[in-house]
Amino acid sequence: MPQQASRMQLVRPSAIRELLALAADPDVISFGGGYPDPDLFPARELAAAYARALGEQAAVSLQYTHSEGLPRLREQLAERMRADGMECGPEHLFLVQGAQQAIDLVGKMWLEPGDVVLTEEPTFLGGLVGLNPYEPEYRAVRTDDHGMDPDHLEEVLRANPRAKLIYTIPDFHNPTGVTMTTERRRRVVELAREHDVVILEDAPYRELYFGAAPLPTLKSFDTDGRVFHVGSFSKTLAPGLRTAWVVADAELIERLALLKLASDTQNSTLNMAAISNYLEEQDYDAHLDRIRDHYRGKRDHTVAALRAELSDDIRYVTPQGGLFLWLEFPEDVDTDRFLREVLIPEYRVAFVPGSSFYSENPRYSRGRLGFPTLPVDRISQGIRRIAEGYNAFRSV
Amino acid sequence: MPQQASRMQLVRPSAIRELLALAADPDVISFGGGYPDPDLFPARELAAAYARALGEQAAVSLQYTHSEGLPRLREQLAERMRADGMECGPEHLFLVQGAQQAIDLVGKMWLEPGDVVLTEEPTFLGGLVGLNPYEPEYRAVRTDDHGMDPDHLEEVLRANPRAKLIYTIPDFHNPTGVTMTTERRRRVVELAREHDVVILEDAPYRELYFGAAPLPTLKSFDTDGRVFHVGSFSKTLAPGLRTAWVVADAELIERLALLKLASDTQNSTLNMAAISNYLEEQDYDAHLDRIRDHYRGKRDHTVAALRAELSDDIRYVTPQGGLFLWLEFPEDVDTDRFLREVLIPEYRVAFVPGSSFYSENPRYSRGRLGFPTLPVDRISQGIRRIAEGYNAFRSV
Repeated sequence: MPQQASRMQLVRPSAIRELLALAADPDVISFGGGYPDPDLFPARELAAAYARALGEQAAVSLQYTHSEGLPRLREQLAERMRADGMECGPEHLFLVQGAQQAIDLVGKMWLEPGDVVLTEEPTFLGGLVGLNPYEPEYRAVRTDDHGMDPDHLEEVLRANPRAKLIYTIPDFHNPTGVTMTTERRRRVVELAREHDVVILEDAPYRELYFGAAPLPTLKSFDTDGRVFHVGSFSKTLAPGLRTAWVVADAELIERLALLKLASDTQNSTLNMAAISNYLEEQDYDAHLDRIRDHYRGKRDHTVAALRAELSDDIRYVTPQGGLFLWLEFPEDVDTDRFLREVLIPEYRVAFVPGSSFYSENPRYSRGRLGFPTLPVDRISQGIRRIAEGYNAFRSV
Repeated sequence: MPQQASRMQLVRPSAIRELLALAADPDVISFGGGYPDPDLFPARELAAAYARALGEQAAVSLQYTHSEGLPRLREQLAERMRADGMECGPEHLFLVQGAQQAIDLVGKMWLEPGDVVLTEEPTFLGGLVGLNPYEPEYRAVRTDDHGMDPDHLEEVLRANPRAKLIYTIPDFHNPTGVTMTTERRRRVVELAREHDVVILEDAPYRELYFGAAPLPTLKSFDTDGRVFHVGSFSKTLAPGLRTAWVVADAELIERLALLKLASDTQNSTLNMAAISNYLEEQDYDAHLDRIRDHYRGKRDHTVAALRAELSDDIRYVTPQGGLFLWLEFPEDVDTDRFLREVLIPEYRVAFVPGSSFYSENPRYSRGRLGFPTLPVDRISQGIRRIAEGYNAFRSV
């Protein structure tokens, strides 16, 4: 067989796949998943929306449409984006097959092999997976309880003339759960302008806030079209619909839509038509309120259990939204080993070891706790098991 | 703004977009579209399949699934592929977002800038659009009424040591409508083996045969896993479902699924679940019979009108399946000019000028006639207009 393209060297199965396979045993309480809670899927309302799309609307819903997406859904989403503080008409927005495709297309548009991508430290594994085929180099920007540190960002930008793209999750970060402050958002956009790089603002958890409405998007501080803001229905309606969108400069949307045409022609017309029907027929904001309440309850329960059970030398920040919480163990704890040797086999509980979430210099003493899909009694029980396992592991 | 990646130079709007926009006037009879006839969408049956997917199956249908696709649909498709003469278990097949994504992922897997892709002459514009971002060079292989000419293929392979991929549509070709003979299929696969290149067998029209069942796939002659066979529901169920599949070597399927994960995570679980339900609940083969009858009727009507109306110096091959027919005008006819100056403005009729379908050395004297969506009276009327316009154009 001929040689595969060099980009394939960076396309590898995840190192944690084997570990997560162990944790798939139903006997194991797994905090590993990033899946939304299926109890929250508005299945009945979607069924009505699909029935309409496949009834009177069938000739349109089942046919091809524009690469940019179904016009009426673009209109509806643009209106929501304006309500969220961004200047956005339908020409500033196009539909993609999940936020993952936004990562792929933005990478495809900008990255030459050896270009530098700046990420938070830690960062979303799927972000790296999506950008890897474009063979960038990564630089990690120091990140604290308030998101990416702009002083360090500036330092890294200065040191890397081939910097091209900043990849960030400012709202309820995956994996850390932290939120970037407004002042930092403004500063990150300014630095991007000064150093002439683009920003990919990945915001799948933005609607899942537990307190006040979320802070202004990075896109809202963008004055010259260098921010690509990505929103998604995966965590609010359902991931199985594979429907997300990108807000960007109108000319760049046209270019991205050409890349989309080349990649997969368009999103499913039917899914877009049904989501458009759903938004028209139902009270989506009331649905969002319900899921916020639900996840807030899970978050509260998780934090209460951590407070009651967990050793004081394990640190975490209470997330103000989203699906994740980040455990910081003492530096000498290797969570890969802890999970593999103690927690999974003996205590039947799992989370995702932190080492998977670094674009460079992985730290082994961290772990991501996902709380969305577990019932509350399993959350309490699972955290008790982690606490017990940790005490045993430390006393050896 | 920073410089876009060099691959973006090859990502351009189609040159015929402006011309097709002119032809979108409802007053113009357009043979331009490659869309399937919406009268054939099995909307009621799909509505039942979606109702079930969103009822008892909702928790699964709306959630994430494997990058390779929904397991039960992989099983069903593998069985159909075996019935079509290919060795195929579920591990040899994965789901993609339309055949276009198969083109993108196969290109992404194999092509370095400067690698050579061999295409039929003419070839499918979308194939070039999909492969362009990987910056290949193209070589056109001579094609006659029986498909790609293997002698010329051998010559081109010998002359191009960087040949990596053969892109072919063996069944009811887009744009020419011709079918590759069995002997040529065997020979093309042999030549690929001898010269160590891979084959992308794009077969979206395969089920739309008008006479005997189609000839064996190139994949069925593959002994060492170098053929990527692509099938699709876009022309048989509905394009709005964006559901197609690739049959290939099991290890390469795993690699492709990792690329799929990086590109867009997975196809829509809901669409896959509903199609799986449809295949289980309905008689898909009876549906295929119905659409074959329907398109055969349109083809017969189109050919009868051509025979009755068209000047003898315009050549065409009667297609044995698919949606297209290729008009070969005398070499001195420039169909771009003919359409722009005469047919569209004066005779209110359009087809796609042939020059868009060449990977190198475009010929201007050709045109693609798509017959699927027009009612039969519009077909007759449209062909009469082409004939009249041609006579006027030639008599100037």
